[in-house]
Amino acid sequence: MSAVIANPTPALTLYQQLADSVQTLIERGTLRPGSRVPSVRRMALQRDVSIATVIQAYTVLENRGLLEARPQSGYYVRSRPGLLAPEPRMARPMARPSEVGVSDLAAEVVNASAEPDFVALGAACPHHSLFPTKKLARLLGAAGRDDPSLIGRYAMDASHPPLCREIARRYLQVGTPLDHDELVITVGCTEALNLSLRAVTRPGDTIAIETPTYFGILQTTQALGLKVIEIPSDPRDGICLDALQRALETCPIKAVLLIPTFSNPLGACMPDARKAALYELLATHDLPAIEDDVYGDLHWGDRRPKPLKAWDTDGRVLLCSSFGKTLAPALRVGWCAPGRYLERVRRLKFTNTVGTPVILQKTLSDFLRNGGYDHHLRSIRRAYREQVQRFSTAIVSAFGAGTRISRPQGGFVLWVELPAGVDTVRLHQDALRHRINIAPGPLFSVRDRYRHCLRINCGLPWNETIEQAIATLGTLARAQTSD
Amino acid sequence: MSAVIANPTPALTLYQQLADSVQTLIERGTLRPGSRVPSVRRMALQRDVSIATVIQAYTVLENRGLLEARPQSGYYVRSRPGLLAPEPRMARPMARPSEVGVSDLAAEVVNASAEPDFVALGAACPHHSLFPTKKLARLLGAAGRDDPSLIGRYAMDASHPPLCREIARRYLQVGTPLDHDELVITVGCTEALNLSLRAVTRPGDTIAIETPTYFGILQTTQALGLKVIEIPSDPRDGICLDALQRALETCPIKAVLLIPTFSNPLGACMPDARKAALYELLATHDLPAIEDDVYGDLHWGDRRPKPLKAWDTDGRVLLCSSFGKTLAPALRVGWCAPGRYLERVRRLKFTNTVGTPVILQKTLSDFLRNGGYDHHLRSIRRAYREQVQRFSTAIVSAFGAGTRISRPQGGFVLWVELPAGVDTVRLHQDALRHRINIAPGPLFSVRDRYRHCLRINCGLPWNETIEQAIATLGTLARAQTSD
Repeated sequence: MSAVIANPTPALTLYQQLADSVQTLIERGTLRPGSRVPSVRRMALQRDVSIATVIQAYTVLENRGLLEARPQSGYYVRSRPGLLAPEPRMARPMARPSEVGVSDLAAEVVNASAEPDFVALGAACPHHSLFPTKKLARLLGAAGRDDPSLIGRYAMDASHPPLCREIARRYLQVGTPLDHDELVITVGCTEALNLSLRAVTRPGDTIAIETPTYFGILQTTQALGLKVIEIPSDPRDGICLDALQRALETCPIKAVLLIPTFSNPLGACMPDARKAALYELLATHDLPAIEDDVYGDLHWGDRRPKPLKAWDTDGRVLLCSSFGKTLAPALRVGWCAPGRYLERVRRLKFTNTVGTPVILQKTLSDFLRNGGYDHHLRSIRRAYREQVQRFSTAIVSAFGAGTRISRPQGGFVLWVELPAGVDTVRLHQDALRHRINIAPGPLFSVRDRYRHCLRINCGLPWNETIEQAIATLGTLARAQTSD
Repeated sequence: MSAVIANPTPALTLYQQLADSVQTLIERGTLRPGSRVPSVRRMALQRDVSIATVIQAYTVLENRGLLEARPQSGYYVRSRPGLLAPEPRMARPMARPSEVGVSDLAAEVVNASAEPDFVALGAACPHHSLFPTKKLARLLGAAGRDDPSLIGRYAMDASHPPLCREIARRYLQVGTPLDHDELVITVGCTEALNLSLRAVTRPGDTIAIETPTYFGILQTTQALGLKVIEIPSDPRDGICLDALQRALETCPIKAVLLIPTFSNPLGACMPDARKAALYELLATHDLPAIEDDVYGDLHWGDRRPKPLKAWDTDGRVLLCSSFGKTLAPALRVGWCAPGRYLERVRRLKFTNTVGTPVILQKTLSDFLRNGGYDHHLRSIRRAYREQVQRFSTAIVSAFGAGTRISRPQGGFVLWVELPAGVDTVRLHQDALRHRINIAPGPLFSVRDRYRHCLRINCGLPWNETIEQAIATLGTLARAQTSD
């Protein structure tokens, strides 16, 4: 047994330890509902940690629904801790390769996402008002005015070097040095995943994925004629390395595809030690990994988690990402850092779409260079975090006892496990009639799993329509169990 | 034997008959070099045809290099008819399926195309000055200003309905009625071809293609794991239906992929009757065809040839095209009208790149709706035609006796067959050292064919640099034969 697997739960960070310790005090009643917890400064002194660590810990507890911040007053233990739903359970392993079926359900959810008057809880799409679209529109207009040839010059080369440099610069800041010409700019993260899969597999091959996982990944996999093995994923810590190792030892797996940082739909984030262990496992089995890092910049804590790519010493990680969740979904600009598969991905890019519109690449590159991106990210992270908390509270009240909800530390989606007996495919169909779109659980697996689960998009600024929609979902779900 | 094949050379149109008849008079010396041919009006009376027919016939002869127009004076027989090179010969059939190899040569040509200071005779890319880029840049800026949400609104739906309506409206004008929601907007024609191939084949399948054909098609085919059978193509009339029929009868062909209208690289245009016959053949064998129509709007004559899709009564033609050769190469907007494969192509689009940037779709839709497109097309057709004629003349002088050149009636590329003994791969390498990029013949086949051929991009406004480059190519080629 390798060292990797012998230590399945790597050491917690200081702030996580502190959060857990305070949580224990709450659960044991030492800190009672409604009481004020020690101030940040006092707690830092008490525990001999930095102020930042305490802020992180309190943030975690706030997100877990245990504390609430009162402006100018401090943090208090929530008076209705009963509202805090437990977290969903990890799926049981079932490591046999499966064909991936075409999903009419996915098409239905996707089509409903395009309906302008639906409450868009289905697709993982933030509301456009959260993005700096006016500023981007100005930059786009200026780019065309300054150099109209950006529209007419056939760019055989996929990637605009200034944009690649900006992206590489940002990865350097999170301990992931990349050369700008190691990047291939793609049409969104979806094309990056496609090219990566095609670079490391052939039709009929089997890949390992997390379960539950983003249905777009399943559809892409199916379209490429690949089989998948679903590896259970812990709602907090991500893919189960034990189960992955067993699968690697028993099946002819050609690659692992996963979202290590704020996964979709669970919101799980693999701690650094688990990412390191995953990389060891890949190296042992000499396998490539395709890393979807599209939520990586959307951490709510202070620190941007490192991507798996940060551990990549021999080019086996194909890092895929985009600006789709952070800046400009409709510009469809993503990228791939394919490591040792660079030349193969470059050629596949040429055969797939030739290039990515260079005027859009220049617009994003200008935005990044002008330094507005970090400021924007701070504001969007705050917004997502607040929205997720509001949605979370509303979901618990709407669905009641027996509901489990994920507690992500980043991103903007929630995974909800409803009381036994609720069928979310039926809930989805009922909801459509109320012009509400949700993503029912079975979408997120190739087996008939998660029928009582659903994913909720919290990328929408909170308002009464949403509040009402969630209440309606609760009513519809309860109607099922009282049938 | 079907009626289709019994008539491999369909009747010529009136103007082609007239052109051929006048050509015979020139070849026999009845009309002598330097002499004036009958005026359009007189010829129309003499032959009892319309004035339009005579104009078409004289245009054809002008393009064949036999006549020249002198302003305010009329048409004259060219004084140096010796400069008119014969046309290339059709390849011999060799109908066995071949694996498609990855081509380093293609990568080399593509990479050199991105070099700004190279004479870009390699890739089939018109010069950006030929496109209305300033107007498009203004429309793009306005689109973003008027509705910034076009940048931030995640469009799950690939296709912008107003653009689809404009495209459908144009096809209606050439006898090809399409409903706007039969169209899928793609990232260039390349993505349309990809999705179409994936919709009708599985890896390992065999498809029939023309030879020679565009190397991008070969690369895409290879990347999808398909095998190809190369069907000879006539430099004027396109794919040889006899040879195609034989191949269909003997091989398990799953689809035919071709460029029926102004093929790349030959510039061949299948006459209507041959398109109809091809369609019959497809129907007989119950096969789909993927039609690359990217040059269809670039006819030099009066009439826009109908696409093969015009004959499609049962949805077996997947029409693929883009604005890449006519309007805005760098915006990467194309489309697919997949017939009965619509739902499959739509889903593949979602799994491949999700959507095509909607702000670019809106920009093109606005341009088309404002009516500037037809005017622009007239000007670009004239420009391409003049450029091709200039290039053609220069190529004949540069390469001398034994050279054959295609005589397209549309588009902007020339296929050149050099005297025996010239190796165009070597010529390409020598030319790169002179900062000249060409596309050597072997790129256009999966077998080692066309080693003495090359394709020349005439999409560049004529100037001294180009004149010099072609002369240099001639010198380099002659140096080979005098080795």
